[in-house]
Amino acid sequence: MNEIVTVFDIESTGLDPLTDHITEIAAIRAEVGPGGYIREIGRFQTYVALPPGVEIPPKITELTGIKTEDLRGAPDAYCAVNAVLAFAGWSRRVAHNYPFDISFLFGVRGIGEDEEDFACTRAMSRLVDPDENASLAPTCERYGIALNGHHRAMNDVEATLQLYAILREKAEVSGITYRNVVVDSAERPLTYTPPGAIVRTLERKQTKEVA
Amino acid sequence: MNEIVTVFDIESTGLDPLTDHITEIAAIRAEVGPGGYIREIGRFQTYVALPPGVEIPPKITELTGIKTEDLRGAPDAYCAVNAVLAFAGWSRRVAHNYPFDISFLFGVRGIGEDEEDFACTRAMSRLVDPDENASLAPTCERYGIALNGHHRAMNDVEATLQLYAILREKAEVSGITYRNVVVDSAERPLTYTPPGAIVRTLERKQTKEVA
Repeated sequence: MNEIVTVFDIESTGLDPLTDHITEIAAIRAEVGPGGYIREIGRFQTYVALPPGVEIPPKITELTGIKTEDLRGAPDAYCAVNAVLAFAGWSRRVAHNYPFDISFLFGVRGIGEDEEDFACTRAMSRLVDPDENASLAPTCERYGIALNGHHRAMNDVEATLQLYAILREKAEVSGITYRNVVVDSAERPLTYTPPGAIVRTLERKQTKEVA
Repeated sequence: MNEIVTVFDIESTGLDPLTDHITEIAAIRAEVGPGGYIREIGRFQTYVALPPGVEIPPKITELTGIKTEDLRGAPDAYCAVNAVLAFAGWSRRVAHNYPFDISFLFGVRGIGEDEEDFACTRAMSRLVDPDENASLAPTCERYGIALNGHHRAMNDVEATLQLYAILREKAEVSGITYRNVVVDSAERPLTYTPPGAIVRTLERKQTKEVA
């Protein structure tokens, strides 16, 4: 069955949605189907303005290539988040490490949402390949997906979309439930649980022993 | 002085905002400055879903290359318009034949807005080069701007942004007022006047005699 998804990614000044800020948002809305079928419907990328006086830490600029001056004249976070959520609309939201990205989006809006329809490709990677590294770069490498310019939002979105098309099929073939599933582990504890999420606890070692 | 603009373009099923529908929206937000300086901040392009039962007329598909099936799974017009207006935010809105594009955007929202800050590159072309053809393709050609794939929204936006950077400077050098100015003429009557617009009536022949 084909489905409509909006894959998105944010870049930020740091990891904490309560004290850090979004610097870039990208999203692709697409129809996804069997055999890696992807039909793009639209895409959105924007820098996001920081609150007055806030700057991007040098180590983050080193990681992402995004400089404070790049954000001059950009939409503020509230506008950018509303734009991307309006763009996504009723489609299924997909992100790699979805709880992280959505915590920033919902943080900006000051509210969560009662009902969600999402998929986290990081959780899918853990569920499908429990003994492998579930980060975006190594997961893409395993599946032969090019990831150039990692940590620029649109590059990550393009890779995540391809990854989703592959992992979705693998999960369905194996009867693995992944809709609205997030993964918690001691190694990488969940810092935010999206409303309506199904939390699976997986420990790499333990999983290895069981498998 | 540099300024922040959001250049946008829509494609539609026809010319009448009351009976026709948006099929595609594209926008680029950018900082524009003297000497054709352009720094892109973000860009947004999406197909837009049609109401049930509506199809794109064959002659429009011929013009734009956009087919009814391309719009499957796209955001509806209300969501797409809200997304692009949130993205544009406080920036100056720019379009080639702005009254046409904004009539569709405001038509979808069911409201206009009290205060606008916009520029119409078609009006600017008429004001700067009163004897020339002010349509997008010939105006771009005069200024050496590439316009590939005219009538796909993002292509038109890219060309319009470059055109704006040039015409703005020419208008300012010549002391021509263009902010919020729209042009009305017998040859091409205004069908929609954006709230707050300054209407200039220009007839090509008459202008020629005067000049």
